[in-house]
Amino acid sequence: MTKTWTGLGIGTKNSDGEWLEMHFSEKNISSNDLDCSEDHLKKIIVNDSEAPSSVPEAYLKLHLLSYRLVKPNETNLDGIFGILKNVVWSSEGPFSIDDFKIAQYEARKMDKHILVHSVDKFPRMTDYVTLSDVRIADANRVRLGAYLGSGTTVMHEGFVNFNAGSLGEAMIEGRISQGVLIGDKTDIGGGASTMGTLSGGNDVRISLGKNCLLGANSGLGIPLGDRCTVEAGLYITASSKIEIVNNDGNISGTVKASELSSKSDLLFIRNSLTGSIQCRPNKKVIGLNEELHSND
Amino acid sequence: MTKTWTGLGIGTKNSDGEWLEMHFSEKNISSNDLDCSEDHLKKIIVNDSEAPSSVPEAYLKLHLLSYRLVKPNETNLDGIFGILKNVVWSSEGPFSIDDFKIAQYEARKMDKHILVHSVDKFPRMTDYVTLSDVRIADANRVRLGAYLGSGTTVMHEGFVNFNAGSLGEAMIEGRISQGVLIGDKTDIGGGASTMGTLSGGNDVRISLGKNCLLGANSGLGIPLGDRCTVEAGLYITASSKIEIVNNDGNISGTVKASELSSKSDLLFIRNSLTGSIQCRPNKKVIGLNEELHSND
Amino acid sequence: MTKTWTGLGIGTKNSDGEWLEMHFSEKNISSNDLDCSEDHLKKIIVNDSEAPSSVPEAYLKLHLLSYRLVKPNETNLDGIFGILKNVVWSSEGPFSIDDFKIAQYEARKMDKHILVHSVDKFPRMTDYVTLSDVRIADANRVRLGAYLGSGTTVMHEGFVNFNAGSLGEAMIEGRISQGVLIGDKTDIGGGASTMGTLSGGNDVRISLGKNCLLGANSGLGIPLGDRCTVEAGLYITASSKIEIVNNDGNISGTVKASELSSKSDLLFIRNSLTGSIQCRPNKKVIGLNEELHSND
Repeated sequence: MTKTWTGLGIGTKNSDGEWLEMHFSEKNISSNDLDCSEDHLKKIIVNDSEAPSSVPEAYLKLHLLSYRLVKPNETNLDGIFGILKNVVWSSEGPFSIDDFKIAQYEARKMDKHILVHSVDKFPRMTDYVTLSDVRIADANRVRLGAYLGSGTTVMHEGFVNFNAGSLGEAMIEGRISQGVLIGDKTDIGGGASTMGTLSGGNDVRISLGKNCLLGANSGLGIPLGDRCTVEAGLYITASSKIEIVNNDGNISGTVKASELSSKSDLLFIRNSLTGSIQCRPNKKVIGLNEELHSND
Repeated sequence: MTKTWTGLGIGTKNSDGEWLEMHFSEKNISSNDLDCSEDHLKKIIVNDSEAPSSVPEAYLKLHLLSYRLVKPNETNLDGIFGILKNVVWSSEGPFSIDDFKIAQYEARKMDKHILVHSVDKFPRMTDYVTLSDVRIADANRVRLGAYLGSGTTVMHEGFVNFNAGSLGEAMIEGRISQGVLIGDKTDIGGGASTMGTLSGGNDVRISLGKNCLLGANSGLGIPLGDRCTVEAGLYITASSKIEIVNNDGNISGTVKASELSSKSDLLFIRNSLTGSIQCRPNKKVIGLNEELHSND
Repeated sequence: MTKTWTGLGIGTKNSDGEWLEMHFSEKNISSNDLDCSEDHLKKIIVNDSEAPSSVPEAYLKLHLLSYRLVKPNETNLDGIFGILKNVVWSSEGPFSIDDFKIAQYEARKMDKHILVHSVDKFPRMTDYVTLSDVRIADANRVRLGAYLGSGTTVMHEGFVNFNAGSLGEAMIEGRISQGVLIGDKTDIGGGASTMGTLSGGNDVRISLGKNCLLGANSGLGIPLGDRCTVEAGLYITASSKIEIVNNDGNISGTVKASELSSKSDLLFIRNSLTGSIQCRPNKKVIGLNEELHSND
């Protein structure tokens, strides 16, 4: 957590001379020192253990994540919401809100239309970082600072927040909240939800191990181990009470979902006749995921 | 409902001379009369009690909502779907569909690409109205005519239709249907659904009071009072039968969900062992929402 | 399945001279031969029974679907994922990933911003095909190759993959997976999921007949006949066990959901007191859909 990074960036300021954003090419980031030979480049230094103290520093840290130079939760991002400004992201580049209103009015008088695709503190990852081994079907759904493992596809309904993502190949058709990490060959089904620590009402960080499947429209409020499946449409919160079904199909007891945290080889379903949530040994996950990853 | 508004707008016509859209700067809208001193501006007058009768009038009313000059359901929008045209919203501005096909072919011959982000009657709010105290992560998800209270954040999975929105600070990560209003410090979780009067099969307008939480992937088919919570993943329709659980944890009876309409301090869950939908007194809503609003 | 099509297209190559994409105007596609009179046009011939063997051929087939010249599952698309390249779709047109990194760096040095709305094998339909009788609120959600019947509206939360879509008028506010077809006057509610053959873990192709309604946040893992309704929030998988409730309201037996495949006039709900999934005769579907289609 004490690695130091140097970046040479090109950025945009508002009309008051304050930084709005900064772009770093991959070749202009290093854990060694870098020469700043070009006039348009600004040199920035950050340390993984220290919180960012400016917009350029925050942007360098977000680039580190998206270039896979640091993993989620490995670089200190404390206070980043306070540092980043609310920016109008437009077809003519980034603006402060006040600057944009003037620019828009002047453009309309000339019969020109400036389009605004976002008004937010965080930009889209793809406007800053493009990776050759990743697909992102709808760029609006992945923030700069997302960490997407090699071979990951984020489909149209997928979403990945900053400081969150996939450690390996993954199919992401649901939402990966801030801080959430998923393992290699894990699939987040269409519309599936992972609870963030901010919105879940508890302090446990959600994660999924390898070869897991969250079914479409399902949801997860506990961390999972490897080779777990949550049935389509089922939402498991940390306080859900769950029947344990053994290999013989008999119910052997009842536990709170949080007691199953981080365990492997589990299948979660809602019994469609009794309405109870049940957990049983998971048997068929591997084949399913191979099919999913061959295509989408 | 009888207030009169004057607006000075700049608009676009198709090749037949018909209005496609019109933009109004905030300074060019007033409840008093306005001088139209600039040639490129067109003067428009509307009244809250009268339905719009033209594209410019409809656009002025949609701007009134997004600038928070009138609240949802306070200005007459009858017949707006019949008035607005289906527009190709492109990187070169708005086109009629026929005009666009010609423009696109000519552009491609010159090796230029015109991008189309929407083909719809309603434009994105952010291309017309930007507010300094609101964030909209994905501009495609908020229509012009949305009313977003000060401090509101619409995250990537959030959606707000025209004539709908938030009266105060809100975190919107789910869908706010046409006509739906939510109160101050209320949170709509990721993927949560609010039933519109058009799609719900009934005539009750959905609303949520203050300090409510719709959990992720939940849904709501009745209006709620203040300080209510719907558990993640639970969809309540007006005809759902619900067990009432009292402070002692005992089931005291069963009601239709519609009988609980607009009541306050309720927690709705699905019992994860019996599968029944239950309603009980809500005790912990405040702290949860404060956490959510400090960040996202 | 043996029809032959000729198209005259305009396309883009990467810096290695490989095709990235190709656009076909509707007038430049025919089931007869076409003269290639203009220098910038490239002539392409495909056959419905043969798989595409190049990027231009794949693009012609995707255009055939979106122009409604062939229906989903009627033209051979085998191997299309292997043929299409991962493209950076940007405000300056399509790029290979390597070419884009250079273009982006050069642009930033000039204080210009190139925006990237997608990094994917498939482009947005609306950048290629616009239909006068269809609305697509968020263009990022409909891939080229989608088949949208006359009168179809795809709302902001709707999604339609290539080789999938609606045969007639439809309201699509949920996700239509690859291969899935829905009939005339059928509505897919907000956030509703249809299981693709790739993600469902089984080989049955999902479809919905006419006048069906998938409620908001519901999901479907079996094909439905006509006039079926799935309650908001209910996910039916092929292996769900379902209670059959007859006209008198009595439970007459239990079946696997897959046994109800393609049957008509069914209403699926989860009993909110017992938690069981139930199927009963559907009685009120028509009126509901008429309301929905008059507006959105």
